Amino acid sequence: MTALELIEIRRDGGEHTEAQLHWLARVAATGEIPDYQLAAWLMAAYLNPLNADETAWLTLGMAHSGLLVDLSGIAKPWVDKHSTGGVGDKTSLVVLPMIAACGMTMIKMSGRGLGITGGTVDKLESVPGFRMDLTPQEMRAQAKAIRIAISGQTPDLAPADKVMYALRDAIGAVASMPLIVSSILSKKLAGGAEIVSLDVKCGSGGFMPDFKSAKALADLLMETAARCKLKTTVAITDMSQPLGHTVGNAIEVREAIETLKGKPGRFRELCIALVAHTFEACGRSPDDARPILDNGHALSKAKEWFQAQGADLRVFDDFSLLKLAPTTLDATATSEGWIKQI
Amino acid sequence: MTALELIEIRRDGGEHTEAQLHWLARVAATGEIPDYQLAAWLMAAYLNPLNADETAWLTLGMAHSGLLVDLSGIAKPWVDKHSTGGVGDKTSLVVLPMIAACGMTMIKMSGRGLGITGGTVDKLESVPGFRMDLTPQEMRAQAKAIRIAISGQTPDLAPADKVMYALRDAIGAVASMPLIVSSILSKKLAGGAEIVSLDVKCGSGGFMPDFKSAKALADLLMETAARCKLKTTVAITDMSQPLGHTVGNAIEVREAIETLKGKPGRFRELCIALVAHTFEACGRSPDDARPILDNGHALSKAKEWFQAQGADLRVFDDFSLLKLAPTTLDATATSEGWIKQI
Repeated sequence: MTALELIEIRRDGGEHTEAQLHWLARVAATGEIPDYQLAAWLMAAYLNPLNADETAWLTLGMAHSGLLVDLSGIAKPWVDKHSTGGVGDKTSLVVLPMIAACGMTMIKMSGRGLGITGGTVDKLESVPGFRMDLTPQEMRAQAKAIRIAISGQTPDLAPADKVMYALRDAIGAVASMPLIVSSILSKKLAGGAEIVSLDVKCGSGGFMPDFKSAKALADLLMETAARCKLKTTVAITDMSQPLGHTVGNAIEVREAIETLKGKPGRFRELCIALVAHTFEACGRSPDDARPILDNGHALSKAKEWFQAQGADLRVFDDFSLLKLAPTTLDATATSEGWIKQI
Repeated sequence: MTALELIEIRRDGGEHTEAQLHWLARVAATGEIPDYQLAAWLMAAYLNPLNADETAWLTLGMAHSGLLVDLSGIAKPWVDKHSTGGVGDKTSLVVLPMIAACGMTMIKMSGRGLGITGGTVDKLESVPGFRMDLTPQEMRAQAKAIRIAISGQTPDLAPADKVMYALRDAIGAVASMPLIVSSILSKKLAGGAEIVSLDVKCGSGGFMPDFKSAKALADLLMETAARCKLKTTVAITDMSQPLGHTVGNAIEVREAIETLKGKPGRFRELCIALVAHTFEACGRSPDDARPILDNGHALSKAKEWFQAQGADLRVFDDFSLLKLAPTTLDATATSEGWIKQI
């Protein structure tokens, strides 16, 4: 098998075998394939998109291109959560401790920003001391101890995705649905999840501008996850308005803490809806979601979590400790968004 | 202007400006654009081919990406010759001295093999001492002295083409007609030619398998050359049979010398037809071609040429001095090919 053979198949709109895509993920991770050949394959894959089989094979290949987090012996279900991202989207900071506070194991592999907005890694970097570079062993130990752990992408987990994503970014091949899906799900599989709560944002503040394209992405995520034996719950939610009342890393962390403390509004309601949705998929009553926020258990879990990852816990009471951007701007919103689920 | 912007335009089937393609050729030559971005652009250009304007702009950009051979003050016309290549195609070795022997200036920028067959550079490397790395200054001086000079691709002339061709080869983006045409013609322009005799091979022994595809390539060559103010004569000739009676670097040089000495056959007739065609385009009688071979002037010019480029002249009488391949094989041809011109 050679890189040139794979490029030619993709270029001509042919179909890859499972073995070819597992090989491609492996050599992408090891660097055995030169960047220029991988870039050519990615551009060909952008213009001649992978089919459903190929997308699942690439996903599995990338998931197994590095180490896997081993959660055996830790309380089930093993849940991860992913949002396709949008302006003001800080749901992870509230949803994660809510789910963990209910006795499920919440293990999140998190990404950086997507051009238009910061990712969870960026947001949490505004918290003094918060470590985002946990090793697979540290992820497992922390999940075992407190049922919640988050990590940014390290060289250990799904390294093929890291290499391919960086190239896609450099060559304008990000916006390919099969490549987006395999990138998202390979990290979840590497992180050890067995169920993923997916939040596909829809509107001008995210990647998918309209419901049709958001639905198409949601469908491909579900189909690919099923082929990879990964359970999913998928919500399509509004991103035609900024989510909540803050946009920016430090001030979004502040709003998330305020929400954990009881602040009402659409952002809080969305977090409850997403958690309820996940509970339902796990055979638990969706009605359990709201009390977790109301009774302060999610707030306590968030503090445990921040502490375990090295954060300065005083940020929960003193927002001035967060690393604020050099400038802030007040703006008046004209409407509230909608919440929709599929 | 950024590489990413150019990749996105090509990816989406948009149209480049002249400035964009001149910029691309320049940064390809200087290495300012990373290989992976250039590879992505080339794959996008393979799948969304350049239009006629774009092909001419890229050609001119690549021609001006390095030095140009300055032929001013040297006898006109300044002729180059190109064959798209095929099995047993050694026409350059006979056609070049024929044209130069008639008082025209023959300056050839030559390439290596094309996968299926050796190029003129490869063939001449079987001649002890033959130098293929002339500088632009040496090309000019030799052309002035004896009206004939050949050079392989050096880092000086059309360096953008050298970089882009190597990448195309590595990523399966060779067989794109606009990229083939810009690669061929940029070298001719850099070499200082004002008229190019083009021989497009047609059949299973070359790149273009049938007359339709050969005609399409010939048409694009003529159209692009015209836009670049380069005069052309184009012939489409048979490559469904090996050309002449030898296939292999050393034995093709031997057959070319034998032909210059008078050996008859289809190969000799093709050389005469190509030269006659070029003469016609330069306003000279096509009937002048045959005598040049018959009267030994072409042979004398070939000896002058080989000597000027450092070759051991004894090869003209002692073929055992040519660097023969380790094995040779006798085969019996079943038919002669055709000669066709447009």
